[in-house]
Amino acid sequence: METPKLSVLPYKGTRDFFPDEMRARNRFFDSVRRTLERACFEEYGGPMLESLDLYAAKSGEELAKEQTYHFEDRGGRHLAIRPEMTPTVARMVAEKIGELNFPLRWYSFPNMYRYERPQRGRLREFWQLNVDVFGCDGVEADFDCIKAAVDILTDMGADAGMFTVHINNRRFFNDVLAALTGQTGESARKVSKIVDHRGKVAREVYEKELTEQGLDAAAIAKIDALYAMDVKTATALCPDSVGAAELNGLFDLLEETGLLPFCVFDFGIVRGLDYYTGTVFEVFDNDPDNNRAMFGGGRYDNLVGLFVGNAKVSGVGFGMGDVTLENFINTHGLLKETQAGAARVLVTRFADVPLSAYMALCDAFRAAGIPASVYLGDKKFGKQIDYAVRGGYTHVAIMGGDELAAGTVKLKNLATREETVSPRDRVTDNLI
Amino acid sequence: METPKLSVLPYKGTRDFFPDEMRARNRFFDSVRRTLERACFEEYGGPMLESLDLYAAKSGEELAKEQTYHFEDRGGRHLAIRPEMTPTVARMVAEKIGELNFPLRWYSFPNMYRYERPQRGRLREFWQLNVDVFGCDGVEADFDCIKAAVDILTDMGADAGMFTVHINNRRFFNDVLAALTGQTGESARKVSKIVDHRGKVAREVYEKELTEQGLDAAAIAKIDALYAMDVKTATALCPDSVGAAELNGLFDLLEETGLLPFCVFDFGIVRGLDYYTGTVFEVFDNDPDNNRAMFGGGRYDNLVGLFVGNAKVSGVGFGMGDVTLENFINTHGLLKETQAGAARVLVTRFADVPLSAYMALCDAFRAAGIPASVYLGDKKFGKQIDYAVRGGYTHVAIMGGDELAAGTVKLKNLATREETVSPRDRVTDNLI
Repeated sequence: METPKLSVLPYKGTRDFFPDEMRARNRFFDSVRRTLERACFEEYGGPMLESLDLYAAKSGEELAKEQTYHFEDRGGRHLAIRPEMTPTVARMVAEKIGELNFPLRWYSFPNMYRYERPQRGRLREFWQLNVDVFGCDGVEADFDCIKAAVDILTDMGADAGMFTVHINNRRFFNDVLAALTGQTGESARKVSKIVDHRGKVAREVYEKELTEQGLDAAAIAKIDALYAMDVKTATALCPDSVGAAELNGLFDLLEETGLLPFCVFDFGIVRGLDYYTGTVFEVFDNDPDNNRAMFGGGRYDNLVGLFVGNAKVSGVGFGMGDVTLENFINTHGLLKETQAGAARVLVTRFADVPLSAYMALCDAFRAAGIPASVYLGDKKFGKQIDYAVRGGYTHVAIMGGDELAAGTVKLKNLATREETVSPRDRVTDNLI
Repeated sequence: METPKLSVLPYKGTRDFFPDEMRARNRFFDSVRRTLERACFEEYGGPMLESLDLYAAKSGEELAKEQTYHFEDRGGRHLAIRPEMTPTVARMVAEKIGELNFPLRWYSFPNMYRYERPQRGRLREFWQLNVDVFGCDGVEADFDCIKAAVDILTDMGADAGMFTVHINNRRFFNDVLAALTGQTGESARKVSKIVDHRGKVAREVYEKELTEQGLDAAAIAKIDALYAMDVKTATALCPDSVGAAELNGLFDLLEETGLLPFCVFDFGIVRGLDYYTGTVFEVFDNDPDNNRAMFGGGRYDNLVGLFVGNAKVSGVGFGMGDVTLENFINTHGLLKETQAGAARVLVTRFADVPLSAYMALCDAFRAAGIPASVYLGDKKFGKQIDYAVRGGYTHVAIMGGDELAAGTVKLKNLATREETVSPRDRVTDNLI
């Protein structure tokens, strides 16, 4: 009986990154990092495993257990593979709250797991960029995060036709609903909840629920009108709201800095998570076949308070998943591998030349900063050329017995098939 | 009653990377990547969760369960958090064996978990560099891996005084023991096993075990002598061994390419793992306080055969953990943050100048490739300077009402305290 063989496929909802896929991923990650480092955001990292309590405290135990891979270690500690980074970063800020240099402008790009059915844009293993500002209550921090999101996309080659940042404010949302409906207290809170779910329930259910809160058709129509308003018109409905002032301050900054073409006020952006307290935003792909939110974020207050009793550290930030963003990059043809890429040399071999001569030649390329390697194996010259072409090398270096004796090297450009012969100590001249 | 607060500490055996630690880690990772990319190694990646079977097939189920974090998902699949990368890469090679361009020269630098008691150099969560060549039986692939290991360390600033690569060959090990003792078959295999554990058992136990296999004192002394021999003397004892030929071929290459000062033949290097079949090596820290193996590797045959029945793909490679290497880097003072680092500008603020003017100034620095950010918040000027100093900024840009009116900006170097005033459109001239 033959031994049953193992499966060669990765676990459901996870991905293998072969070198071509990894190069694409690195282009994406490197581009994001360059943008954020240029803006003086600082990278941090945390562990893949955390106490399950950390997620239960933020999202409730039931949701935390349902959405994570969780298990007990041998010491009876209940652990979860992180499904998001926010609880970790809140823990870290709490850990060194007395030493840190606020406001913090931090980012991280960790891998994480969510236990869910894999579908387009959602996998079980993914990477999520997290960008946050901690310790600044002013709207300039909200602006800073939105600008980072816009810069990340435009640095990858995206323009204002490809994506739009939809912006709202949770405080304004509550205030304007209260102002339009005259509701206060618990009833106002209920109206907010109902309007929050406006797009997710049937229209008659929505209207019935609002009617039950005492709203008439005119009040419901006023709410409907908000969805078509620009920021000035909407905020004028409730000029004393702190949220309205924040929205106007933010949109003024966006206009003055030239970011307005990327942004729009959208009363439909609420974001389900309970912890958002001010600005909220979502970045939409404008592609008609994929016109939906790619990622988003907003202002949340005092997550750090879960750890430190009397701490008061506000935060604003966003999270961006790699799967959604790679869809965006591919749909819009961004971050292509440049054909006119840098030289990459395969040093080919003949049996009558000592291997160490090829190793020395290879080192000369590397010392000049040109990626190079010696062909490994004893295949014939034609097969070595095939290997170079398939392996993405731009050139092969050829040094047979004659060249060795003459102190020369032949360099063949694999794209143009052009050959040049140079003295061995000047072999890199044609490549730099 | 107060709500019990969550712990701010990371899970036992894992680490938080605050920005200073993350920068150090990135310097290390970036240096490794630069070395390997220059040598045309290609990066790949795989999932953090794999089927437990994958590790059980390589290491046995008991060891796999003991050393990993493993659990069942809701579909009853038994999963493990990867404790090593080799089974994943073997699976990936098997997955696309018909399409890949052999020999493969691959690397990866993933995070992984081992369930063990945390101690110096060993944590539960760590990153491990994996470098492998697949599909080349020749000793030039062994050389290629050892050269990669040496280049990684020297590119970080290490010299031959700081580390040594100890090299042996498993085939030679078996052959020379058979030749010296005259044993064959099962008895020869037993002698190899006993000698493999020479350093780990009491001397009298070791001698007793060999005596039981029929060895006399003279034979035991001959084995002892091997541990002090150079490669030529040792291989001369058993000149027909394929392993001896491989050792001599490898050491010739090391000598001809100038790597010999970093390398030594060491009959004591065997490496416990059953799957090594040829060259084995370990890289030692030469620091007297930490004189031990940091990492190692060798040639193993046909791990891919676990997945594909008639596959025959040889491999040679090494794994290098980040914790051990960071000890080495710190002990020898390598990869220090350069004091004369690139400029990094904090744009300070006064309340009477519009924020958007500061944002525009900040963008001018960034457009010139200089990392810059606007101070977030409304603290006084002195506090903003403190923030810049603590945050690692090299300069502050100062633009009050007077400068704004005059179209100028003052730039202060925080190290030298020197101030220069320039027109706003030439503000980056002094920094590039």
